[in-house]
Amino acid sequence: MAPVYFTPGPAQLYPTVAGHLQNALDKQVFSQSHRSQAFKDLYRRADEGLRALFGLPQDYAIYFTGSATEIWERSLQSLTAQHTYHLVNGSFSKKYLDHAKWLGRDAQALQVPFGQGFSLDTVKVPAEVELLAITQNETSSGVCMPVADIHALREKYVAPLISVDMVSGAPYAALDFSQVDMAFFSVQKGFGLPAGLGVWLVNERCRAKAATLEGKQYTGGHYSIASLQDQYQQFQTPCTPNVLDIYLLTHVVEDMLQKGVAQIRKETETKAAKVYSFLEESALFAPFVQEKAHRSPTVIVADVLEKPAVEVISMLKAKGLVVGSGYGAFKEKQIRIANFPAVSEQQIDVLVEALRLL
Amino acid sequence: MAPVYFTPGPAQLYPTVAGHLQNALDKQVFSQSHRSQAFKDLYRRADEGLRALFGLPQDYAIYFTGSATEIWERSLQSLTAQHTYHLVNGSFSKKYLDHAKWLGRDAQALQVPFGQGFSLDTVKVPAEVELLAITQNETSSGVCMPVADIHALREKYVAPLISVDMVSGAPYAALDFSQVDMAFFSVQKGFGLPAGLGVWLVNERCRAKAATLEGKQYTGGHYSIASLQDQYQQFQTPCTPNVLDIYLLTHVVEDMLQKGVAQIRKETETKAAKVYSFLEESALFAPFVQEKAHRSPTVIVADVLEKPAVEVISMLKAKGLVVGSGYGAFKEKQIRIANFPAVSEQQIDVLVEALRLL
Repeated sequence: MAPVYFTPGPAQLYPTVAGHLQNALDKQVFSQSHRSQAFKDLYRRADEGLRALFGLPQDYAIYFTGSATEIWERSLQSLTAQHTYHLVNGSFSKKYLDHAKWLGRDAQALQVPFGQGFSLDTVKVPAEVELLAITQNETSSGVCMPVADIHALREKYVAPLISVDMVSGAPYAALDFSQVDMAFFSVQKGFGLPAGLGVWLVNERCRAKAATLEGKQYTGGHYSIASLQDQYQQFQTPCTPNVLDIYLLTHVVEDMLQKGVAQIRKETETKAAKVYSFLEESALFAPFVQEKAHRSPTVIVADVLEKPAVEVISMLKAKGLVVGSGYGAFKEKQIRIANFPAVSEQQIDVLVEALRLL
Repeated sequence: MAPVYFTPGPAQLYPTVAGHLQNALDKQVFSQSHRSQAFKDLYRRADEGLRALFGLPQDYAIYFTGSATEIWERSLQSLTAQHTYHLVNGSFSKKYLDHAKWLGRDAQALQVPFGQGFSLDTVKVPAEVELLAITQNETSSGVCMPVADIHALREKYVAPLISVDMVSGAPYAALDFSQVDMAFFSVQKGFGLPAGLGVWLVNERCRAKAATLEGKQYTGGHYSIASLQDQYQQFQTPCTPNVLDIYLLTHVVEDMLQKGVAQIRKETETKAAKVYSFLEESALFAPFVQEKAHRSPTVIVADVLEKPAVEVISMLKAKGLVVGSGYGAFKEKQIRIANFPAVSEQQIDVLVEALRLL
């Protein structure tokens, strides 16, 4: 039997990917011009599917980039002149902050230790802040911010644009997009696709702010919001995009819609509960994130207590179960288990049983 | 029979692509971590293949980006503080110039009309220029710069870094990389792959120049030469790359090496000669580029004399032969025929016969 990938991205491919890929090859989709009507029709279909999946307000636009990493940079270039504020509790939220500093922004941050989330009363966003950067799901530590907390931040802070990194949280996270201004993800996590595409969801407030900065600073060239929006209005992209991933995303989103996003969320929670319950009972493992409300349902991080993590990973791999190592300094002591829609409840059961027998 | 794409990119897929893609799916390559040994081994293999194919000097490094468009921007950010010089004779050389202006560089250009190339004696590069941008093959107009001319510019101008856009010329163009400092291409042209990957070949002189700019200006964040080089030394990338395209590129480059780059060049020239000979004799078509030395062997642009170009394109399409339209303002009056390695001599024969019968 083929191994199952519980890795936090690149991850297990969504079960329908191979079939869609074969259809696209048969139809020679990847030879079609990105300026053709066929491509415009594909982009429009991707747009419709993603709007339905996320319940996007009408004023949102959807842009494609090479990666989510690029969106950290482009969002800062197009949406900020000076002041940003970042909630940092892991390696990826830290990288958004780093980008702001590299770009010369006056970037402030509230930092909490790895493995912890934020209590809302400690968040104090200064009045001059243009963009408040939130990482909804920290892929490095397995900490999530409940969407209700994001919505509460909006209520408290009306002025700054709110940017949500939902790279490893989408499509599970039931974010109310009318309560934020932009969000983004990459496709090799929750959508179970080959890597190489970032998806950027941007509202009218962002476009208005971007318009005030055009001409006053470098806003990202072909990947400025102005340029992306200009192309988006014809369902085009500034340069030749990753058509293969856009094709697969379109079809997997339609598969997900057919299943229903409510059902996907329910299954995600059921599977997550099984893993966390086991971790809490286990003598060999423990959930890394202490605060239950901050435990990510999509990326589950476990401390390995009595063995080197690498040994656990090897033993699982021998059984065809591939889990991720801990991130960075936690490589020796933790494992990460991605609980994305591509992994079935039955596969989670097999994994939990294997963990139990270690 | 499936249509054949003679479009200038996205283009006909290289004949081995579907098989490689199936192998990668079978081996679950797209679920593997981009931090894994398996990925490092893949990158190393891509590196070895590309070095052999291009005959790269030892000091070159090979980086991956989301597109060639991105390399316009990143090369200017990492390699120039102020002065650039551009040879502009079409839409893509113009875009490199635009990027330099957007980035606030003092960008000078020698511009010649669409459809023309450059006489070397008209090129006057001022002493202060840091980067000389050359488009080896203008995908928009079908004009190429013979590699001997590029080598001659190096002889004349020792100081500036020479950057060669070979997006639609690679791997045909027999560039001597010891005579330039960097070059780049995207994979959906001559390599016959799905779009979504830029490949950047960078020598030590570039890295030395980049080092002098680090800390003094924004050099591209994760996509600065410093960051890319830092990762490259472990055959890693700054963020999750398009692993699918890197996999396909690696395998198609190996297929090309097996065939031999000399053979590929010879076949390209044979096929190009057939098309240009027909265009010269034809009453309906004429080669757009007058100067024979500047006629691109890889992207052939033809004026359509007595019919609307769109009608010609439709009639060919009905026969399963897909050619490109003219670029921009030339859409109504020209067709573009890509003569990439993925298209066989027999397929070119079929196309020429169909053109003859129009």
